[in-house]
Amino acid sequence: MNITGEMLIGASAVRGADATLRAFDPARNIDLDPPFGGGGAKEVARACELADAAFDAYRQAPYETRAQFLEAIADNIIALGDALIERAHAESALPKARLEGERARTVGQLRLFASLVREGRWLAATLDSAQPDRKPLPRSDLRLQKIPLGPVAVFGASNFPLAFSVAGGDTASALAAGCPVIVKSHPAHLGTSELVGRAVQKAVADSGLPEGVFSLIVGEGNAIGEALVAHPAIAAVGFTGSRRGGLALVDIAARRAVPIPVYAEMSSVNPVFALPGALAKKGDTLAAAYIDSVALGVGQFCTNPGLVFALADSDLEDFIDHATVAIGKKETQSMLTAGIAKAYASGIEARDASGAQQLATGVKGKAASGALPVLYRVTAEQFLATPQLAEEIFGPTSVIVTCRDEDEMIATARKLEGQLTATLLMESDDIELARRLLPVLERKVGRILANGFPTGVEVSYAMVHGGPFPATSDSRSTSVGAMAIERFLRPVCYQDLPATLLPEALADDNPLSLWRLRDGELGPN
Amino acid sequence: MNITGEMLIGASAVRGADATLRAFDPARNIDLDPPFGGGGAKEVARACELADAAFDAYRQAPYETRAQFLEAIADNIIALGDALIERAHAESALPKARLEGERARTVGQLRLFASLVREGRWLAATLDSAQPDRKPLPRSDLRLQKIPLGPVAVFGASNFPLAFSVAGGDTASALAAGCPVIVKSHPAHLGTSELVGRAVQKAVADSGLPEGVFSLIVGEGNAIGEALVAHPAIAAVGFTGSRRGGLALVDIAARRAVPIPVYAEMSSVNPVFALPGALAKKGDTLAAAYIDSVALGVGQFCTNPGLVFALADSDLEDFIDHATVAIGKKETQSMLTAGIAKAYASGIEARDASGAQQLATGVKGKAASGALPVLYRVTAEQFLATPQLAEEIFGPTSVIVTCRDEDEMIATARKLEGQLTATLLMESDDIELARRLLPVLERKVGRILANGFPTGVEVSYAMVHGGPFPATSDSRSTSVGAMAIERFLRPVCYQDLPATLLPEALADDNPLSLWRLRDGELGPN
Repeated sequence: MNITGEMLIGASAVRGADATLRAFDPARNIDLDPPFGGGGAKEVARACELADAAFDAYRQAPYETRAQFLEAIADNIIALGDALIERAHAESALPKARLEGERARTVGQLRLFASLVREGRWLAATLDSAQPDRKPLPRSDLRLQKIPLGPVAVFGASNFPLAFSVAGGDTASALAAGCPVIVKSHPAHLGTSELVGRAVQKAVADSGLPEGVFSLIVGEGNAIGEALVAHPAIAAVGFTGSRRGGLALVDIAARRAVPIPVYAEMSSVNPVFALPGALAKKGDTLAAAYIDSVALGVGQFCTNPGLVFALADSDLEDFIDHATVAIGKKETQSMLTAGIAKAYASGIEARDASGAQQLATGVKGKAASGALPVLYRVTAEQFLATPQLAEEIFGPTSVIVTCRDEDEMIATARKLEGQLTATLLMESDDIELARRLLPVLERKVGRILANGFPTGVEVSYAMVHGGPFPATSDSRSTSVGAMAIERFLRPVCYQDLPATLLPEALADDNPLSLWRLRDGELGPN
Repeated sequence: MNITGEMLIGASAVRGADATLRAFDPARNIDLDPPFGGGGAKEVARACELADAAFDAYRQAPYETRAQFLEAIADNIIALGDALIERAHAESALPKARLEGERARTVGQLRLFASLVREGRWLAATLDSAQPDRKPLPRSDLRLQKIPLGPVAVFGASNFPLAFSVAGGDTASALAAGCPVIVKSHPAHLGTSELVGRAVQKAVADSGLPEGVFSLIVGEGNAIGEALVAHPAIAAVGFTGSRRGGLALVDIAARRAVPIPVYAEMSSVNPVFALPGALAKKGDTLAAAYIDSVALGVGQFCTNPGLVFALADSDLEDFIDHATVAIGKKETQSMLTAGIAKAYASGIEARDASGAQQLATGVKGKAASGALPVLYRVTAEQFLATPQLAEEIFGPTSVIVTCRDEDEMIATARKLEGQLTATLLMESDDIELARRLLPVLERKVGRILANGFPTGVEVSYAMVHGGPFPATSDSRSTSVGAMAIERFLRPVCYQDLPATLLPEALADDNPLSLWRLRDGELGPN
């Protein structure tokens, strides 16, 4: 499949005439061919009209059609072959092996959502039988199912050109819910986006679905994305990226004539609590694993461990010594974009100026202009007095916060902002301290880990990739895992509706063999 | 139990010194004793601090304790006896029989939520087993449960002094979720609020729960409510009332340092589609039932049928004639408050000026200064050209919209704002038209009824009292029925957490006998 630089508006390929955008290879520091035509409000309006027109037919198509459509997207992505990996590698400087893993995750999550669509628990089908003889008043027949919200706008992330982009988690869960999707192509991987977009477009056509089920728009700057979120046909937004970008979309969505939900996954520093028993037993191993996690993928993960809290004692000093040595061996590497590299450099500059003690930096590697890993230490007192230290710096850097005692550790944890994750490094003699920390952390984060590092997010039923503000704009959901589908649904109740008009999911004889809540009993009834 | 005019801040009764408020009897047009002391930011801060301090202990108390607490509230409300009904009658002018029914609904929903707490499906307990041998990477043990958001601020409605007030649906579902609740006392039923508040306060103490689980604040104007929503300890808001009031709270919540969800149930005109087969077969009966529904409770229901759409033909003219006669027999009745009566009068004045044809008004009854029922007719063309006609007038009035043909009816339906309900009056020969309307209505409303009227909202598993904006500020939920508990929860994932630290709901051996999703299989496992 060739990359042409066009937008995909429904079944058409459309060359934008408002601007010319270039894809860029950050490792080789060169522009990539072909140039992309950027569009504007006109293409947004066309994509939104098609999505709106497609919505009823798409949501009412058989669930098996919807499931097969998701699987067809997965198959079409695989069929893109090495060309997809090559292009994503060129546009992101991410290693090919990592991108192959990301592709597997992307198609895996499309197939997970296909299985969810078939299984149908997301419908929340609920039936309350009529009670015509109830006193003082009879009860009506009441049946509930969830239906999709409507067309969804998706904004992918720079750091996951496959798994959090055109056919990533937001798109997969919105399509699974029955929502048409319009993706804004990420400027950091325009070619990758077009390739995946064409894979989706082909799946729409091959599945016999209306063309408006999917569009991919391209535009310069923020205007086209803002026009998309403001369009009356859009019913919800999925976003992964910076806090500033996410909050801008939240603001636009709130000011619409009809406000809509925005699921923005934004910033997180992912505190790690290295408890004394763990540091005493295996501080050296933990230090190495910690620094590996900090430097993994040039630190470009929303789950990067940016803060470590530990009690000041000699075991901690050993841990710090090991971590200092380990980070000193990490090499500079190319970041995803020049903008991200620049933001990292100025973040480090500000951190240096904040009074944090720089423990060590990495070493210059092969990359021409890569990010240098940096490790810091501060006291808990300093940390609380210096808001900059609690802010995310996207890249391979982390701060070790030394706490006088358990009470100071817990008090500091209480002051943290909302986070995606928190981690406990612990041994059996740390249980009591962990037990004190746990309720504090539950109120701060979406995922609590023990004895691992938060980088690496499993796609499964029990995953939560979410958390209180500002980690996300809506803590009630997750952007990774099966529960992500619930973001794009709302309940509708049908009262005394004639059987012939009832949705199939709510028919008396349960033709879809769903698990339903019938008069309070859950089962295949 | 005596009414003292005090606020209930945790276990204390506190007399507000910032203002004096008087309860009012709208039927007798007199102030009621005693005077209430209004508080301000100081009392809000105290209630919020107590709620925050109570949160962990309350959410971690055994679920059986939480369930019994909800049942104790119900018992204590019943124990208030006739004094509660008398006071609510005096403050609202609502008939005692209606208030007794509302009390039954209120205690019924507390007991429903108690049963939900015990049954535990709201926890969404989900377990994904570790796969230590998985290639290329092992999978961690992942477990998910939902936890409560935090302290919830509740604003009750004037028109349901029991079921949508101090111990109404918002409070019951938030307490069931594990959230402490702070209620702002509704100025239209201060004494009723205090009585019910004391019943809740007593249940908190008798259940051995921390006092901050419940507070009831009283204040003049909007300042105290605004301070409550703005307080950092508040994690969510439940509101039932006017569009202006709801949007003001949404705005405050969005501008907080940490924005929070607001569940505001606001305005709805509840369109009724009277299809030709139904009008031909029993237009006279339907006209009588329609006017009964319009006038029920002086039209003071959020589900009042404010619009009827029908095809222009002789059966419709018969229906209109019958409806005109029926409304002419309805008497003026006292409204809930002087403010509501004034708003109704000016709404009618504006509607008269809008060009709508007034068909008939009711007749003067015993009430000194009650609301006069008014019925209008307009063409669909007029309706679409006159936005005022689509706005809710809270009170006993309705508009019949005559449509040239089916296409015009459907096109007009497409232009409606979000609604709580839509109703189909239909016979078997109306099925095809109903089938065309159904997908349009699904996109507009939270509940679709056939052959009934939307007034009367069942508390059950399948009920949805919600709908797209501006019916509510969040269409993804319901404020009535079992699903209301989900508004106050968010998911947390525990990864590789030692068994001794896991929440009981997620323990290997399922000690709570919950239905759980274990490796994709739902069951008592």
